Amino acid sequence: MRQRNKPWADDFLQENKHIVLQNPNQYHNNWKDFFGNNNPIHVEIGTGKGQFITGMAKQFPNINFIGIELAKSIVVAAAQKVMEAGQDNVVLLNENAADLLEIFAKNELDTIYLNFSDPWPKNRHEKRRLTYRTFLEQYEKVLHPKGEIVFKTDNRGLFEYSLVSFSQYGMKLEEVLLDLHAHEDPTNIMTEYEEKFSAKGQQIYRCKTTFK
Amino acid sequence: MRQRNKPWADDFLQENKHIVLQNPNQYHNNWKDFFGNNNPIHVEIGTGKGQFITGMAKQFPNINFIGIELAKSIVVAAAQKVMEAGQDNVVLLNENAADLLEIFAKNELDTIYLNFSDPWPKNRHEKRRLTYRTFLEQYEKVLHPKGEIVFKTDNRGLFEYSLVSFSQYGMKLEEVLLDLHAHEDPTNIMTEYEEKFSAKGQQIYRCKTTFK
Ligand SMILES: C[S@@+](CC[C@H](N)C(=O)[O-])C[C@H]1O[C@@H](n2cnc3c(N)ncnc32)[C@H](O)[C@@H]1O
Ligand SMILES: C[S@@+](CC[C@H](N)C(=O)[O-])C[C@H]1O[C@@H](n2cnc3c(N)ncnc32)[C@H](O)[C@@H]1O
Repeated sequence: MRQRNKPWADDFLQENKHIVLQNPNQYHNNWKDFFGNNNPIHVEIGTGKGQFITGMAKQFPNINFIGIELAKSIVVAAAQKVMEAGQDNVVLLNENAADLLEIFAKNELDTIYLNFSDPWPKNRHEKRRLTYRTFLEQYEKVLHPKGEIVFKTDNRGLFEYSLVSFSQYGMKLEEVLLDLHAHEDPTNIMTEYEEKFSAKGQQIYRCKTTFK
Repeated sequence: MRQRNKPWADDFLQENKHIVLQNPNQYHNNWKDFFGNNNPIHVEIGTGKGQFITGMAKQFPNINFIGIELAKSIVVAAAQKVMEAGQDNVVLLNENAADLLEIFAKNELDTIYLNFSDPWPKNRHEKRRLTYRTFLEQYEKVLHPKGEIVFKTDNRGLFEYSLVSFSQYGMKLEEVLLDLHAHEDPTNIMTEYEEKFSAKGQQIYRCKTTFK
């Protein structure tokens, strides 16, 4: 649900609707037209303050990035980062991942990033986890058959759960790293949470998975 | 390959062939008869000095256990533990896991344990890892369709590799634990390696996987 009590945020979003798109459903099945090119489209769900998506947009100018962030006050912070970056291959949506099918058409996406998704550790909240099977059903639809999900987290319970959830859904694991930062990877863009938790010495997990 | 330079070990094995069975191929498709009951059969590959298999045999008297250990000098140590345990539901084989199909018939086993298997970290040794696909093909044959593989290790690289290998083979992950000892599990029997590495504060990984 949108927070309705932040008029400054509403004003900001109104002024910056070229960065935080309004009514994104209008681009359903039309995202290539929106970006004006045929480049792959990568979506991050739960973008937070936008460090990852802006870093990726700079690193990969021939990929189009869309960051989806539910919290209005947080998407404002991400928008400021996107603005500073001055890249034309990244936009944001202040939407709920549960509405993915209204925003994207079948096969429209090439990669989905889940970065430090809320863990919802209680069993009775399993359905809220972004790697629960009803979410996987949506990802399968909007992802190209060759597309992949890239999932990073510091949360052991969520990572354990998600590996099993992917597998039980019939997805294939392409990569599993149980201590991402133990490997030299200059292309890895850290998220805000990744920076915070790895600075505390916590290991970061990553996996890549497909519907092949 | 057997070590041929340990006559004392040969003598020991000759005297204790009720514990370390000779020519196990004779029981192919006949292991229920060998044990004299219809209980499930669980096999551990790379039994080492036998702490796990004897502990399991004591804990689960209605399951039959077979420990397979390639190294003659090591199987002797395991045999001594089995002897002390005085259980009739556990035997050992001084064999190579590569010969599994000669020892067991289709669907004959209910569970296979891989405990702290040699990691073979170099890429060019991938085929030697006990979770390489040619081994998985054998496990699939000898395991009952509802059977499972339970894999424990402290080795991050081997665990990462194995999760991907299981998944790419089409197996389903039923459980993944990235810090086994963080959970209270009074039924977990520690292996020698598990005791050694967890005492050093290293986390222990476990997964359960099926061919369903
Ligand atoms: C733990 S934060 C991680 C933020 C960022 N990805 C990072 O790694 O620093 C999770 C973010 O996901 C957002 N979020 C949670 N559920 C969402 C949903 N259903 N749709 C879109 N965003 C969501 C939250 O508002 C929050 O900003
Ligand atoms: C690292 S040790 C672990 C021993 C024990 N499972 C533990 O956790 O303490 C691996 C054991 O597997 C045995 N092994 C290696 N390859 C084997 C094979 N192909 N067949 C049977 N045993 C094997 C080795 O001889 C060694 O005893």
